[in-house]
Amino acid sequence: MDEIRDIRGRDVFSDFEHVGFQATNLGKAVKLIEKMKKEKATVFFTFTANMVASGLRGLFAEMCRKKYVDVIITTGGSLDHDLIRSEKSYLLGDFNADDKELHKKGINRIGNILVPSDRYEFLEKKMQQIFEKLYSKNKTTSPSEIARTIGESVNDGNSFLYWCSKNKIPVFSPGITDSAIGLQTYFFKQKRKDFGIDVTADMQQLASLALNASKTGGLILGGGISKHHALGVNILRGGFDYAVYVTTAPEWDGSLSGAKTKEAVSWGKIQESANHITVNGDATMVFPLIYSKLKV
Amino acid sequence: MDEIRDIRGRDVFSDFEHVGFQATNLGKAVKLIEKMKKEKATVFFTFTANMVASGLRGLFAEMCRKKYVDVIITTGGSLDHDLIRSEKSYLLGDFNADDKELHKKGINRIGNILVPSDRYEFLEKKMQQIFEKLYSKNKTTSPSEIARTIGESVNDGNSFLYWCSKNKIPVFSPGITDSAIGLQTYFFKQKRKDFGIDVTADMQQLASLALNASKTGGLILGGGISKHHALGVNILRGGFDYAVYVTTAPEWDGSLSGAKTKEAVSWGKIQESANHITVNGDATMVFPLIYSKLKV
Amino acid sequence: MDEIRDIRGRDVFSDFEHVGFQATNLGKAVKLIEKMKKEKATVFFTFTANMVASGLRGLFAEMCRKKYVDVIITTGGSLDHDLIRSEKSYLLGDFNADDKELHKKGINRIGNILVPSDRYEFLEKKMQQIFEKLYSKNKTTSPSEIARTIGESVNDGNSFLYWCSKNKIPVFSPGITDSAIGLQTYFFKQKRKDFGIDVTADMQQLASLALNASKTGGLILGGGISKHHALGVNILRGGFDYAVYVTTAPEWDGSLSGAKTKEAVSWGKIQESANHITVNGDATMVFPLIYSKLKV
Amino acid sequence: MDEIRDIRGRDVFSDFEHVGFQATNLGKAVKLIEKMKKEKATVFFTFTANMVASGLRGLFAEMCRKKYVDVIITTGGSLDHDLIRSEKSYLLGDFNADDKELHKKGINRIGNILVPSDRYEFLEKKMQQIFEKLYSKNKTTSPSEIARTIGESVNDGNSFLYWCSKNKIPVFSPGITDSAIGLQTYFFKQKRKDFGIDVTADMQQLASLALNASKTGGLILGGGISKHHALGVNILRGGFDYAVYVTTAPEWDGSLSGAKTKEAVSWGKIQESANHITVNGDATMVFPLIYSKLKV
Repeated sequence: MDEIRDIRGRDVFSDFEHVGFQATNLGKAVKLIEKMKKEKATVFFTFTANMVASGLRGLFAEMCRKKYVDVIITTGGSLDHDLIRSEKSYLLGDFNADDKELHKKGINRIGNILVPSDRYEFLEKKMQQIFEKLYSKNKTTSPSEIARTIGESVNDGNSFLYWCSKNKIPVFSPGITDSAIGLQTYFFKQKRKDFGIDVTADMQQLASLALNASKTGGLILGGGISKHHALGVNILRGGFDYAVYVTTAPEWDGSLSGAKTKEAVSWGKIQESANHITVNGDATMVFPLIYSKLKV
Repeated sequence: MDEIRDIRGRDVFSDFEHVGFQATNLGKAVKLIEKMKKEKATVFFTFTANMVASGLRGLFAEMCRKKYVDVIITTGGSLDHDLIRSEKSYLLGDFNADDKELHKKGINRIGNILVPSDRYEFLEKKMQQIFEKLYSKNKTTSPSEIARTIGESVNDGNSFLYWCSKNKIPVFSPGITDSAIGLQTYFFKQKRKDFGIDVTADMQQLASLALNASKTGGLILGGGISKHHALGVNILRGGFDYAVYVTTAPEWDGSLSGAKTKEAVSWGKIQESANHITVNGDATMVFPLIYSKLKV
Repeated sequence: MDEIRDIRGRDVFSDFEHVGFQATNLGKAVKLIEKMKKEKATVFFTFTANMVASGLRGLFAEMCRKKYVDVIITTGGSLDHDLIRSEKSYLLGDFNADDKELHKKGINRIGNILVPSDRYEFLEKKMQQIFEKLYSKNKTTSPSEIARTIGESVNDGNSFLYWCSKNKIPVFSPGITDSAIGLQTYFFKQKRKDFGIDVTADMQQLASLALNASKTGGLILGGGISKHHALGVNILRGGFDYAVYVTTAPEWDGSLSGAKTKEAVSWGKIQESANHITVNGDATMVFPLIYSKLKV
Repeated sequence: MDEIRDIRGRDVFSDFEHVGFQATNLGKAVKLIEKMKKEKATVFFTFTANMVASGLRGLFAEMCRKKYVDVIITTGGSLDHDLIRSEKSYLLGDFNADDKELHKKGINRIGNILVPSDRYEFLEKKMQQIFEKLYSKNKTTSPSEIARTIGESVNDGNSFLYWCSKNKIPVFSPGITDSAIGLQTYFFKQKRKDFGIDVTADMQQLASLALNASKTGGLILGGGISKHHALGVNILRGGFDYAVYVTTAPEWDGSLSGAKTKEAVSWGKIQESANHITVNGDATMVFPLIYSKLKV
């Protein structure tokens, strides 16, 4: 048990790793991300839509501007929020808000973040234009092509899609129709019946990114389809070499969202010899803290 | 506050509703489901893949056999597990298993459920046949068509896909490529480059089910894309009339998975006047209990 | 791995153990409690105060009436609620209540259970009488003596203290002053300055119960001081032979409340060879379900 | 809703308050603690024993050295860990350790922190001396007197008890016998049968601190008896003026540990007009971050 170390009397700020509990896991996560960067691993970065609705959006954009990550896998909702916020701000509210009252005012709530309904009118107008543009080139498009086209259409340094388009970081969104953008396809298809999104179209590129990498690292914030898809495609290469999860989901319900890095080893989603750590906590607190401590 | 009642001295088994805490929410959930059935609401039933890997699969099949629900929305993983288990069983293990050891033995772990790797060899063979069959009819297919075709190809009364196909209950899976079935599309496309899955193809049918219903009810087990998609499509009609969530996800991270029924009211995903309840707990315990107490 | 079993196609109600996830743990808990009873283990039963404020109170009383358990360890709040409810009922409310409004009306909230303030006026009157009675016998009393005297003073078949007094089941409450009863000692001492509660007075009896038992079993609902005290005293004998935890607390913060049975093995709080299981869920749902399935 | 603000495009590090979700709550907590300090509120500081086993111990000591807090309420286990670590270090381990193996080696696990058993031999020797010293002055002692005497007996700048004794910060521990120190009373009483700990002896001083304060603030890390006792005594004065909770416990089980600040308003534990906030997360990460950002 050579990982055992004295934790008495250390400065708690200098090195979280020696504090115990989740502070230790956070300290380990920092070192592990530095390691995957040093080893030039292809970094798969995944997150959920609520994070893009939060202030993390600017941080994600910054990371894409710096090409700190190589592949993004996220939900359709992340594209929704990134596009809207390139033009219109969200507001802070309260978890205990009166939701009937909010609904009457045309305000949608995401935890303690508020999205007035006119934001979705903006999205509707914009997405109809983007779909028309895509359709004029090709009747069938793909999630990554939609993401890239949105990124090209916005002009906002706080948009991760903007920087991904600029820096040619592919954005995969296998469940893209489950979003406001997805609802817009329903309306768009009333005009253009033969418009389609072929979700298999991205599989080749995504698989190649996993297969051709000498090493891969997973930076996995939250659960759901984004987390699972990054793990799933890495099975093709025998698993991630490194993986960091930040999660609020419990392990005991057997869900993939709550499954720790350890479980992924059984599947070959993370290599047996891999370095991996799960940090339990809300990404809005945990991830800026991790990012602020990275030296590589 | 006319919902206030004396809770002293009641038989705890006769009526959970009067016990307090989650027992009360469970009691309310039973009544609410009975109400949505009495009112002949179109029932949207959603669940996550881990539940299909568990013993709930047989219960879901039973509900589909009885046409207790009208629409299913679930993940690609649910299709994986249902197909595999129509031929091969899963095993019980332990949450604290040695995952390196399991990996060496070719056993994949989902919480305390074990899936030997040969199950995925079976899936591979089967899906290549199914894709070939679909491709011979039409180069581009849809998630619901894949689900129906799987259902037609299996012969197992414990399969929900089997009963959905028999009883014409549509199964939507907007994130279908995020699954073992999805990985198989990668291999299939090496032979059939122009094979595709158009995820927009299901939007019309799904939207119609929401728009044409006089009332809709949501029976939402777990979170992720399945939960969100059911809520999202019901926005088109001003929200669910009734909704029951069973969840283990916390509310405080602003995730959709952890968001309570209350939050959905602000979005028009659940109607202001709707009856809705969130039960906090693992569906493997909570849902059989709910189901066993339903009288309608 | 001889615990591995086929879980396909079983009736989910007949035997939760084969369902997976927490249903499996619940199934194991039932068998383990039956085993500890068959082996005539001395059963240490612990629970938290909120459970006594819920409908579980009647179930706990029933268990004490049947002498199903041998020792109770709980908080001062459990004594508060049991005493009050022997005379006055609690009410059902809502987790999302307006707490300012409730405060104005003199109603105290415990989750979705409501306690009008006059209940505490009743407690005040009653406890001043009980303290006077105890003081007249002895200036210094003990938590177990207070619990027994309350039990003797109430006449309610739904009171666990009533049955514990009748059936000579000792009730330990090491943190008794942290309660409404504790606040009453502050007022009582203004009259009787030399009144005292010696918490060490119960240690001998509690330790003997652990040391003299041929086998011990822990039935541990919730966390906090009740859970820890039961585990702590069993260290004296090398640990529990059997232990069942029902908990909602997460493991990852290093808290004793969230610590699984596994961790207790390292301390000698549970024997290495012991049978032990943790069920994750709210006791108001989980425990009635467990109790209803016990055959021993 | 004047709390609503634009959250787009801000530097996530400069001000967590504008990020959303728990980052916002953390930002609000910082401001609220600064406010309670500016208003010269009497600060009640509570924490659980696992935190004293972690690296937070040094931070707590630092706060006591600076007299940043006025009253401490904690468990007996906190006294155990503070005393032991004044002489002997703890070690870092792993949440997934083999607990049978650890037990064979005489190592006790608290999450990912390890405590070799010889630490408890040190505690035994030390506490027998301290009890003898207390007994020689007075046959009956109190929790706060034990805490002060331990503090006087250690010589370690990383000990919070050391600084509390030096700076006359009272330390209350209503459940003190539930600890290794408590087990030692069992052994001590075999020699000194009339030794006792009167837990009512501290009520007068604790109540006076609440009643005589012009304002009170609660800094509540974790749940259990420490949290409840601070809230309970503040009922005497109509509730806390300010309260900050840091917790990992869920709200939905009706437990006091998981109850949010909002619920305490109904009880008069927090004043209706009070400023209060709950931050959801592990204190080992959250609290150092809060503390590092305090300007008052």
